[in-house]
Amino acid sequence: MNAFEYRNGELHAEDCALNALAEEYGTPLYVYSRTHFEHQYRRLAAALKDADPLLCYSVKGCSTGAILELFRGMGAGLDVVSGGELFRGLRAGFDAEKIVFAGVGKTVDEIRYAIEQGVGFFTVESEPELERIAHVEGELKKSARVAIRVNPDIDPGTHEYTCTGKGDTKFGVDPATARRLSLRAIEHDALRLVGLHTHLGSPLMSVDPYEKALEVIRPLCRELKERGPHFRRLDLGGGLGIPYRPEEEPFDLDRFAKMANAAVGELGLQLVLEPGRFLSGGAGVLLTRVQYVKPHPSKTFLIGDAAMNDLLRPALYDAWHGVNAVRQTGETVCGDLVGPVCETGDFLARDRELPAAEAGDLLAVMNAGAYGYTMASNYNSRPRPAEVLVEGSSARLIRRRETWDDLVRGEE
Amino acid sequence: MNAFEYRNGELHAEDCALNALAEEYGTPLYVYSRTHFEHQYRRLAAALKDADPLLCYSVKGCSTGAILELFRGMGAGLDVVSGGELFRGLRAGFDAEKIVFAGVGKTVDEIRYAIEQGVGFFTVESEPELERIAHVEGELKKSARVAIRVNPDIDPGTHEYTCTGKGDTKFGVDPATARRLSLRAIEHDALRLVGLHTHLGSPLMSVDPYEKALEVIRPLCRELKERGPHFRRLDLGGGLGIPYRPEEEPFDLDRFAKMANAAVGELGLQLVLEPGRFLSGGAGVLLTRVQYVKPHPSKTFLIGDAAMNDLLRPALYDAWHGVNAVRQTGETVCGDLVGPVCETGDFLARDRELPAAEAGDLLAVMNAGAYGYTMASNYNSRPRPAEVLVEGSSARLIRRRETWDDLVRGEE
Ligand SMILES: Cc1ncc(COP(=O)(O)O)c(C=O)c1O
Ligand SMILES: Cc1ncc(COP(=O)(O)O)c(C=O)c1O
Repeated sequence: MNAFEYRNGELHAEDCALNALAEEYGTPLYVYSRTHFEHQYRRLAAALKDADPLLCYSVKGCSTGAILELFRGMGAGLDVVSGGELFRGLRAGFDAEKIVFAGVGKTVDEIRYAIEQGVGFFTVESEPELERIAHVEGELKKSARVAIRVNPDIDPGTHEYTCTGKGDTKFGVDPATARRLSLRAIEHDALRLVGLHTHLGSPLMSVDPYEKALEVIRPLCRELKERGPHFRRLDLGGGLGIPYRPEEEPFDLDRFAKMANAAVGELGLQLVLEPGRFLSGGAGVLLTRVQYVKPHPSKTFLIGDAAMNDLLRPALYDAWHGVNAVRQTGETVCGDLVGPVCETGDFLARDRELPAAEAGDLLAVMNAGAYGYTMASNYNSRPRPAEVLVEGSSARLIRRRETWDDLVRGEE
Repeated sequence: MNAFEYRNGELHAEDCALNALAEEYGTPLYVYSRTHFEHQYRRLAAALKDADPLLCYSVKGCSTGAILELFRGMGAGLDVVSGGELFRGLRAGFDAEKIVFAGVGKTVDEIRYAIEQGVGFFTVESEPELERIAHVEGELKKSARVAIRVNPDIDPGTHEYTCTGKGDTKFGVDPATARRLSLRAIEHDALRLVGLHTHLGSPLMSVDPYEKALEVIRPLCRELKERGPHFRRLDLGGGLGIPYRPEEEPFDLDRFAKMANAAVGELGLQLVLEPGRFLSGGAGVLLTRVQYVKPHPSKTFLIGDAAMNDLLRPALYDAWHGVNAVRQTGETVCGDLVGPVCETGDFLARDRELPAAEAGDLLAVMNAGAYGYTMASNYNSRPRPAEVLVEGSSARLIRRRETWDDLVRGEE
């Protein structure tokens, strides 16, 4: 399904014209489609139903409360990586049991908070972290659940910055260490080993890396299931990709599901997944209003009012986002879509065919629902955009635009 | 001068021990030295005194109110690039006359606000922007001052993302267009051409690019000075570099000053500069407390509590920042200093000799005073750090640490 479609030449989010939303809420503006979130979640849940999975939506992708609530309503759990994300999850009404806590740098305060709240389990990324968790648990006289994160040393072919499953990254531990830490957790009074975890990178466009990771993990799962009385989960992380470019094939969900269903079926484990981008990426667009069209001997610069501070992915990962004219003309121009920030790195699209826009025209930067607003900053003292959630023909402001007063809040 | 020095093996900011500041204000923490800001400003002012310059501190580098006030106290002007930065400047008590407004994407609202407040001048980056300014000025029945930004097509050898003086970037206009727009501004009732502007990129470690730019601009300045009754300023932008690596030579301020003094002397113009990094870069450090030391066959990961969301420069520009142990040991280890964010791009230092730290130790990421806090985000739902300004033996909180409540402010 595509929640963003042209009707009479006007790009819509479900039944709402984007032009009207921009008029009402101003630009730059993030617009999300509720139906798209739901559709993606239900597709995933349906494909994996044989595995009775716990689908933990990854908060880092898109973390606004209204969106978390929407996932809660569908029965999702959450994947969090900080005290702040856990706070958000609890605030959105999630049962702590359904929240898993990953990340290489958990502080004592974060661990304590998570144990007190009763999170589902920690995914443990190093030996000293396991010791720290055991220590805090001892203090609190609780016994908390852990899953060791295995780094299977697989190159998933993502951008270097979002590849997390290679051996030379900071994430997880090698299989032999994972075995040792798992056995230690099984024996430790204050710990319960509930499973194994892995996350390979993002976005993955192929199922192959997951299969390779399973080959690495499977024998370990078998052994631990035998030895660990609480061992019952296999968490394959997130990373399921979405096509950003028109020529990209969508992620093969059927093949992925077949693999995952078979694996957990055979092992007698429950599947946990931590998808972020797959659930939220296609659900959002960033609207930018063209301020100036600046011709140049070699190309045209479309200067809009959204910038790298609003959507960092192009600058940081050289990520490609589709750009559509909100009012379709069919005419194109070669050049860059840029913002007002005083850096050459401030581009949203570079050296390609773009809609031929004029000053005042509205453009939609597509697939901005994941790692969009969550990475936004106030660079150049720019207030962050508003966020609007659309359902059918109704639209709701889920986060107001920041003001200049917000910029100086907290200054003394 | 170096505001950050070891005393009895303890790194200090002026007379304050960084360890004590971290205890009091928590980590991650930005710490700035007032004396360093002042020292840099006074060095620059002294070197350029023959040119009677207007030194417009570039707000984008480090924009906290207390720091802007400090520059105001020394007589500085400001370089702003957004309504938000102008708001900050006025809030810090700057005389609007001393504020110059640059940027390729000025909106009608920003232009109106700036004219109403009476900013010194706009640096105009395109023909449609000149028309827009003229139009708003006509509406307001004021006549506002402009300087055309010349893009001299010079490669200053910076990171691609911060090179702004090359012909194929979005910045400024080529010299022939600059001449045409300048003449148009001279003739236009609602406009006053007060000068020419250029900015080449950042950071520049050599004076050569400035000299090359002057060669391009000089003939145009001569002509416009003759034809424009209000033409009296030459704005050479910012970009003056600071050494980040120990082996780098400092920027040759004397040579730069000689060149600039001579140029404006000969042309009979007033010099305007827009330094950001030069004034603030060395004045700040980012403190991070090591949470885990994670050994790895090929290297060691020091996992601290500061991340790419707190300091983006390493991830975005592959920028190099020195890392010092706050308590000196002299021992080193080979590896990465990383943060808790779930990306491989989350590093502050990569593949190099670092202080051999243990969990609980404090590290200082040096030269974090420019493009540090201003580029910070809440990625991974991480509250932004606090900022502390040191003067001698006293320290003052100039921005409090964000809280979890700040993360969800504005959500409905
Ligand atoms: C541990 C972990 N789980 C899940 C995710 C979500 O990844 P994606 O949005 O690609 O599904 C990430 C992303 O960084 C992660 O690090
Ligand atoms: C127009 C303009 N002026 C001044 C500066 C400040 O540069 P720096 O901090 O290198 O001095 C910049 C940086 O982007 C700029 O774009």
